[in-house]
Amino acid sequence: MTNGCRHFRSDPPRIGILGGGQLGRMTALAAIRMGVSVRTLSPESSAPVEGLGESMTGDWTRTEVLESFAGGCDVITVESEWAPADLAARIVGPDIPVLPRPRTLEQIRHKGVQKDLLLQAGIPQAPYRRCESIEEAQQAAAELGYPVVLKKYQGSYDGYGNALANSESEIRSLWPLLSGPDGILVEGWIDFKREIATLVARRPGGEGVIYPLVDTIQRDHRCHAVLAPGSSDSEITSRARDLAVRCAEAVDSVGILGVELFETRDGSVLVNELAPRPHNTGHYTIEACHTSQFENHVRAILDWPLGNPDLIVDAAVMVNILGRSDSKVSLESIPDALQEHSGSIHIYGKTDSRPGRKMGHVTVTASDTESARRYAESIVSRILI
Amino acid sequence: MTNGCRHFRSDPPRIGILGGGQLGRMTALAAIRMGVSVRTLSPESSAPVEGLGESMTGDWTRTEVLESFAGGCDVITVESEWAPADLAARIVGPDIPVLPRPRTLEQIRHKGVQKDLLLQAGIPQAPYRRCESIEEAQQAAAELGYPVVLKKYQGSYDGYGNALANSESEIRSLWPLLSGPDGILVEGWIDFKREIATLVARRPGGEGVIYPLVDTIQRDHRCHAVLAPGSSDSEITSRARDLAVRCAEAVDSVGILGVELFETRDGSVLVNELAPRPHNTGHYTIEACHTSQFENHVRAILDWPLGNPDLIVDAAVMVNILGRSDSKVSLESIPDALQEHSGSIHIYGKTDSRPGRKMGHVTVTASDTESARRYAESIVSRILI
Repeated sequence: MTNGCRHFRSDPPRIGILGGGQLGRMTALAAIRMGVSVRTLSPESSAPVEGLGESMTGDWTRTEVLESFAGGCDVITVESEWAPADLAARIVGPDIPVLPRPRTLEQIRHKGVQKDLLLQAGIPQAPYRRCESIEEAQQAAAELGYPVVLKKYQGSYDGYGNALANSESEIRSLWPLLSGPDGILVEGWIDFKREIATLVARRPGGEGVIYPLVDTIQRDHRCHAVLAPGSSDSEITSRARDLAVRCAEAVDSVGILGVELFETRDGSVLVNELAPRPHNTGHYTIEACHTSQFENHVRAILDWPLGNPDLIVDAAVMVNILGRSDSKVSLESIPDALQEHSGSIHIYGKTDSRPGRKMGHVTVTASDTESARRYAESIVSRILI
Repeated sequence: MTNGCRHFRSDPPRIGILGGGQLGRMTALAAIRMGVSVRTLSPESSAPVEGLGESMTGDWTRTEVLESFAGGCDVITVESEWAPADLAARIVGPDIPVLPRPRTLEQIRHKGVQKDLLLQAGIPQAPYRRCESIEEAQQAAAELGYPVVLKKYQGSYDGYGNALANSESEIRSLWPLLSGPDGILVEGWIDFKREIATLVARRPGGEGVIYPLVDTIQRDHRCHAVLAPGSSDSEITSRARDLAVRCAEAVDSVGILGVELFETRDGSVLVNELAPRPHNTGHYTIEACHTSQFENHVRAILDWPLGNPDLIVDAAVMVNILGRSDSKVSLESIPDALQEHSGSIHIYGKTDSRPGRKMGHVTVTASDTESARRYAESIVSRILI
């Protein structure tokens, strides 16, 4: 046993990942590269992790399924805040840590709880109200000023579950779509200058590293592109990174914490949302940083020393490959896309495509973000998957 | 069908890899990242590729084993020149290409045939004689001048199968260890300034790209470290790269061809040896180049456009992790090794370690090769696997 790290029952250690999508896939690939064993569990057959380590399929709300999954794992992690981490933790007890901790996931999963927690920690964010009725929401909007953003508390992702409301009647019509049993989150609209993001990797004892600040470009409420390094000035960059570290401390995160922020036109920095796991805004780190977000997630949950998060290139741009139609996945367009310029193409191994579904991504490294983006967009525009 | 590329029966295409060691493993990882399906076949249970795609074990000299392996593959490649590519090609016929072509493997596998071929192509190399008896070898040594290098024609790797002889009596005592049915290769000793290497990636139609020239550092006749970029001047670098391309043309390679060369003290460049596959001297390309040797090997055998082989960093150094004793593999020393500095650690997933066995490697990128090497050596020195 060295440098205070945990001692594992298996050697090489085995990590269990609850989830079988692209985040589980890329986490598994990072672990396998280091010789770490991987087991995944997903509720349904999950092509992205099939053929990577040991992939199990089963109803992960059932005790016996989780027990058989956890047996022989040294640590369990999640691909998303919706995985049954609390149930897993209750079943496997303190023997096998579940990291990030279920409490962290709980605090982040519910947007109202997340905002309250960040408020208590004194972290600047968009003004908001938790509203239990349409009338409360309309009242909140009057106070915050239109337009407001209505957010579903739980289960929203990639723009599903958020909507802009410009009037009382719009709030009324959106209410049934977005409200849960405890209502809805109403947020003041931020006239931001740019959307920015970073990642914090953190070990169980709190030692952490922070990734470069990046610009994120959204289209149709979905992450379209990530530009590294971001274009904020050094003062904004340093404030944003400080805030991200404070967020990681506030939720006591372990592994990667994705932090999305706004730089506003009047020069303030607000935290927008947290994600307690490797994040789409960090995929560029695979090619562009000394240590990728996936590798540092694995290192963190194993309580291994973290790797250097700094860029090894001047600039990198990641562009998502989204499905365009309901169809079986085809790689037929890849050779044509590769012809134009060199980029690192990641295809997630999903068997079915559908409009807007994240099917893969491309990262291009270059001497500046403009040319990297031009090349990346050009490659992605030719991929029909 | 786009840009003249082959059309595949499966979509995504499936590549079959004959071999289950670290080269197959890293090739599989590159393919999987791009969404390409992978099947491997090894003669015995092969931990490095287990849990990566579909790994088959069986006697690959048997027709029915090769048939069942090849069924559903779109192209078959090899991890080493010793894999039964010719048998596979005879069985699967022209339907499923075997790439690199069996003829290329045949020409490279036998060191005498390889040297004759390069000689015919006018490629400079160390002077040599193919000798069928001890007396012929002693005669050759007298002509070439002592010391001479005795080389086994087939089956040598990592320094096994080569030896320096300083006298007639040493030739006599080495003969039984190194000679085959058709004798032995006797080579003049080259008083080289440095050992250098590069990689050529080539598509079936001959379009190719060439990787940077690197310095290779041998210890005990094994590759210890690779420094990219190499330290040869630009004229030597350009001559070495030209020679490598001519070698690729001479053997009509498809996929990666590793080319090891000497820069001599009198400023000439000689080709030392070819390897018709991803090569240990190219592992640094995973982190340090736009497109790794493994990705370009996959692209080449699929007849996809090749990626940019250039460095994306100023410098990178790879150091091999060799086994130190006969033991079960343990990752217990990894956290301590990671503590010192960030490097990208690759552990090949072998279950047993033995002295000198290639167990993994570390790549460090930095602004110059000296500091990259210092960090990489320091990490590797702490790994006891």
